[in-house]
Amino acid sequence: MPFPLAKEIYREQRERLASTMREAFPADSTRHAALLMAGAEVPINSTDCNYLFVQESYFNYAFGLEMPDAMGAVLSSGEGIIFIPRLPEDFATWMGALPTPDSVCAQTGADEVHYVDELAAVLAAKGVHVLEVLQGQNSDSGLAVLEASVPPAWLAQGGTVAGAWLYHALSTQRCYKTAREAEVLRYVCRASSVAHVEVMRTCRPGMSQHQLESTFLHHAYYHGGCRKVSYTCICATGHHGATLHYPQNDAPVVDGQMALLDMGGNYHGYAADITCSFPVNGRFTPTQRVIYDAVLEAHDRVLRAVRPGVSWVDMHRLAIRTTCEHLIRADVLRGDVDTLMEKEVMQFFQPHGLGHLLGLDVHDVGGYLADCPARPTQKDCCKLRTARVLDKGFYVTIEPGCYFNHVLLTKALADPQYACHLNEEKIRGTYWNFGGVRIESDVLITEDGAINFTLVPRTVEEIEATMAGQAFHKEVETYKNVVQ
Amino acid sequence: MPFPLAKEIYREQRERLASTMREAFPADSTRHAALLMAGAEVPINSTDCNYLFVQESYFNYAFGLEMPDAMGAVLSSGEGIIFIPRLPEDFATWMGALPTPDSVCAQTGADEVHYVDELAAVLAAKGVHVLEVLQGQNSDSGLAVLEASVPPAWLAQGGTVAGAWLYHALSTQRCYKTAREAEVLRYVCRASSVAHVEVMRTCRPGMSQHQLESTFLHHAYYHGGCRKVSYTCICATGHHGATLHYPQNDAPVVDGQMALLDMGGNYHGYAADITCSFPVNGRFTPTQRVIYDAVLEAHDRVLRAVRPGVSWVDMHRLAIRTTCEHLIRADVLRGDVDTLMEKEVMQFFQPHGLGHLLGLDVHDVGGYLADCPARPTQKDCCKLRTARVLDKGFYVTIEPGCYFNHVLLTKALADPQYACHLNEEKIRGTYWNFGGVRIESDVLITEDGAINFTLVPRTVEEIEATMAGQAFHKEVETYKNVVQ
Repeated sequence: MPFPLAKEIYREQRERLASTMREAFPADSTRHAALLMAGAEVPINSTDCNYLFVQESYFNYAFGLEMPDAMGAVLSSGEGIIFIPRLPEDFATWMGALPTPDSVCAQTGADEVHYVDELAAVLAAKGVHVLEVLQGQNSDSGLAVLEASVPPAWLAQGGTVAGAWLYHALSTQRCYKTAREAEVLRYVCRASSVAHVEVMRTCRPGMSQHQLESTFLHHAYYHGGCRKVSYTCICATGHHGATLHYPQNDAPVVDGQMALLDMGGNYHGYAADITCSFPVNGRFTPTQRVIYDAVLEAHDRVLRAVRPGVSWVDMHRLAIRTTCEHLIRADVLRGDVDTLMEKEVMQFFQPHGLGHLLGLDVHDVGGYLADCPARPTQKDCCKLRTARVLDKGFYVTIEPGCYFNHVLLTKALADPQYACHLNEEKIRGTYWNFGGVRIESDVLITEDGAINFTLVPRTVEEIEATMAGQAFHKEVETYKNVVQ
Repeated sequence: MPFPLAKEIYREQRERLASTMREAFPADSTRHAALLMAGAEVPINSTDCNYLFVQESYFNYAFGLEMPDAMGAVLSSGEGIIFIPRLPEDFATWMGALPTPDSVCAQTGADEVHYVDELAAVLAAKGVHVLEVLQGQNSDSGLAVLEASVPPAWLAQGGTVAGAWLYHALSTQRCYKTAREAEVLRYVCRASSVAHVEVMRTCRPGMSQHQLESTFLHHAYYHGGCRKVSYTCICATGHHGATLHYPQNDAPVVDGQMALLDMGGNYHGYAADITCSFPVNGRFTPTQRVIYDAVLEAHDRVLRAVRPGVSWVDMHRLAIRTTCEHLIRADVLRGDVDTLMEKEVMQFFQPHGLGHLLGLDVHDVGGYLADCPARPTQKDCCKLRTARVLDKGFYVTIEPGCYFNHVLLTKALADPQYACHLNEEKIRGTYWNFGGVRIESDVLITEDGAINFTLVPRTVEEIEATMAGQAFHKEVETYKNVVQ
């Protein structure tokens, strides 16, 4: 393991949750326990092969155990108790030594480990009467989060189950990264950054997109220990760059095109999410530079503005307004920036939000909890994955973009209220098959600004030098964004 | 795409199925159509990220279309009709151009393509009255195969559904590879072979197992175009080699140990499944050689015996008997081979079957169909994934092994009926942490023997030369196994 994970990461999370539990149930907190459930193996269609196991994030967050079908309880004392499945004897022949309470205890640093079938008895003996389970909906997928299956024995013995508290409490907690978590996030971001640099250094016209993906995957795993990525790699070149989640990665890399590579390793669940955009032949054309510099300024302005107390929606508007100004200057858009912003024209050029919370999920939980600002309705910012006010400890992506998407532009050009602001000749003549640029960094919000964990070439000069073979080295950048 | 797949592969499968359909329903075959359903995207827990899509194999087999939520019908005329989902407009922004009947028709070579909501009307207009759907159980996973969801409109208009025929017919057909399929299987086996050779060439003590996996994955994808593997890579070294499906791949590679690497690329669904075993430092010790040569002779004897008409159970017995003879010669086992075989002692040294059918699934369908021999009950061969008599066109793995699994050996040593045949001193003293050896090749059964598509170093001399840096080259080997 290139970066050892301390058991204290998880112990601290359990203690934080216990502390919230004591506040939530001041009269009888010792009667409550949070109960979380591990994910299950997922078979590939009807075969006996499974997808590579991905632990459920809430469970992983509290226990750091990569085992399917386990459960875990957090008591208001902070005690963490893991319950493991009893596996059949032949597991030892096929999958390795049977896990035991002792081995899992030593591995995880949990306070106690028992078998799942002992759950009701163990928790009753601890004086627990109410199992607090997760009930909620992931605001990015719309799917229900995994609610622990309480064993029938628990109900039979008079125990109760409650679903009102845990989802909000734990999702809120997950937004505030601890210093220990930040170290892991910094590690996976660095490992993913150097893998991006390797792709940039080796990219050549004539390759296939899949070779860019393979290079990233290999570097992140071989050198960084990231067996998984946090999402399917997006290795778009040319006009495919205008497809936001382009999944195929099987087209040729053609001289003169831009690449837009959105790829992030995953380390013990912790995600990186980085996008680099660059010319596949290593030299920007003036046309490419116009769009690239527009997005880079949007990215940098946000970096110099984020801090606790700032609204993410305002940051989004700052970004798209910056890009809009550049597009006006480049005569791609016509009119004044206030009018264009008012008419929400940027919905056609950046049809996604500025960024999102990041952590154990790439689109991390907590974006639209019950006490958070609602999703904006305007067409140029309705795709935001959160509308929250930033706080210290939040970890977010900053990822402005600018795309020439045929479907969106055709729609805009056909609608007089937008078409009057679009330079159709330039869009069709110069940029129609440009694709897009996205610049995405992973940023921790600090007390007075932000730290950018992303260590990739960003300026035109840095990119061209790196692609020409010069060694690239960058230190983590800290921004002190005091209020002006 | 490094190896272009011809649309004719799938057209031929549809025509074969149609021909079986005409035989099955001679009176009214034109009233029947086989209906297959594509797989669905699988979300990772409750997030908005999906696992990399893997198409359902029966659908893939007949249509070669990597699209979720589609359906496909094969008529008794051989006509193949694909039905695609209507996707929301913003699919074009996020995932790429919306598929249309025309684009999918051009891409797949299907005779017609419509939308899923047109299925009932289109098939009725073709004179179809009975939709034959898949109903069956995968004999390796125990899971139900994917039965097509017939649209309510079909039943509302008086159409019927039948489940008795298709599963057996199509599973049987999948066992008999066409010449076109064999070309793809040969390609993916070659691509996987050269990736294995690359791992062998670069393996060094002091590495981590995960770097062996990463090297394989990268080589198979970058050079071979295999974005996926056919199963989770098994990169076992040392005593982990005794865990048959060792999944972790995170231990150090230690000087003096054996590696057992079971890894196979996947190309458009078609699977390779190859195991190489070798000393991680490139030189066999006499002790390692004893076990390796035992398994290699088992492998080679089977290769020289397989042909149509031969029982797979007999091949399994030939393999374990061969290994048994070597273990007796090496004084690991004591007694005569007939006694040891009768007492099923090899259950402790090779606790898996000789091999399995291979194709679009790594454990391919058709192993235990209703008209096939039942699973043997003896403890030394009850794990066989098929007990069939081989036939021309079958594609199988030949993968004998010999392992020193602590759990199994402890059990055997504690049981007097087995212990009397085990040299406990040698097993505990010399072989306790040996791990295991498995040698696995992918083999097509021909009219008079077999073709081994696997192109990796196999003899001790080949392995040592390759690991010392000598170029490795092998041609596909053909075995004419005429009856003696």
